[in-house]
Amino acid sequence: MTLRRSPRPRRPGRPGPGRRPGGPDTRGEILTAARTEFGDRAYDGASIRAIAARAGVDPALVHHYFGTKEQLFLEAMELPFAPSDVAGQILDGPLESVGERAVRTFFAVWDDPLRRGPILAMLRSAMSNQVAATLLRQFVTRTILSRVVAKLDLPDRELRAEAVISHLVGIAITRYVVKLEPIASTSNEELAALVGPVIQQYFEA
Amino acid sequence: MTLRRSPRPRRPGRPGPGRRPGGPDTRGEILTAARTEFGDRAYDGASIRAIAARAGVDPALVHHYFGTKEQLFLEAMELPFAPSDVAGQILDGPLESVGERAVRTFFAVWDDPLRRGPILAMLRSAMSNQVAATLLRQFVTRTILSRVVAKLDLPDRELRAEAVISHLVGIAITRYVVKLEPIASTSNEELAALVGPVIQQYFEA
Repeated sequence: MTLRRSPRPRRPGRPGPGRRPGGPDTRGEILTAARTEFGDRAYDGASIRAIAARAGVDPALVHHYFGTKEQLFLEAMELPFAPSDVAGQILDGPLESVGERAVRTFFAVWDDPLRRGPILAMLRSAMSNQVAATLLRQFVTRTILSRVVAKLDLPDRELRAEAVISHLVGIAITRYVVKLEPIASTSNEELAALVGPVIQQYFEA
Repeated sequence: MTLRRSPRPRRPGRPGPGRRPGGPDTRGEILTAARTEFGDRAYDGASIRAIAARAGVDPALVHHYFGTKEQLFLEAMELPFAPSDVAGQILDGPLESVGERAVRTFFAVWDDPLRRGPILAMLRSAMSNQVAATLLRQFVTRTILSRVVAKLDLPDRELRAEAVISHLVGIAITRYVVKLEPIASTSNEELAALVGPVIQQYFEA
């Protein structure tokens, strides 16, 4: 299937119509195709296959450049951190201090303007655009919640995990967007000491 | 900081140029002037005096139609609830169940689409516009936080109140905007039972 093909002369040994090996701007073209595909079909509906078709390349090349759909999404959305790493840092360690680790890890990401910008952009889009909200929902569900839930042995673990995420996102908004005082200028340490034990309750049955 | 008008004395004998008594659309003109003034100068910077001047009416007429600056703000922003009532409902009652009342009261407002719309619109504007964020910050600080803090006798009470607000706003976002499941379709009762005791911790020293 070819969605886009420039009428360039074909050289011998090429993989076939619409499929071409990586050129200097192939990576960028795949990212553009990915943004369009994720925008049109949200996270669950998008496929590497369809993204490859939009970019006029072989799906194997997309995997070669970007790895999984999740990794491609992160690069396309310019999210400069891996949610799986964050979930790992929070969940690997004693269960008694998971609330505090959640606060610390979350705000270490948010404190870095380079990482905060893209997350804020996603959240902002989700606030005003239903497609962006769906994309964010599916992404969070597939990449963060599924990992957290797999590690927790509690009743209502999805709901509890979402309550934790809600609290952290809410603090990010009052702290970095609305800039309420004193929460905006409270140190991460103080915040972890206050909020950590509260969030901890969600990790206890 | 004061919520009251600047104490400059009014010149005797004035209605003067641009001042006129209430006409059929005076109310609407004052609301338009208020929206402009709040938009330009945020909550703290706006004054009934300046709004009256923009509308070309006497400040007394603005007070007559709308009461205080807070009440005028609520009408101008079309927020169909009074934060002071909400704060009252949450704080009046036994301290042991304030967390649960906070969740119930907050989500009773959010569950009503007519009341949810305008709050969401304010939050959405604050997410993408620095002036709107300042407006929301000053409004929340002056009208909600000051009332809550006056009723609490705890260390770090501002920070604790803001942590509570953060959690509730965060849930509103995951529940009504991002629509994460299962939190989006969990009943208010179940949510109050889960989140109430967690939030309760913020009200205990």
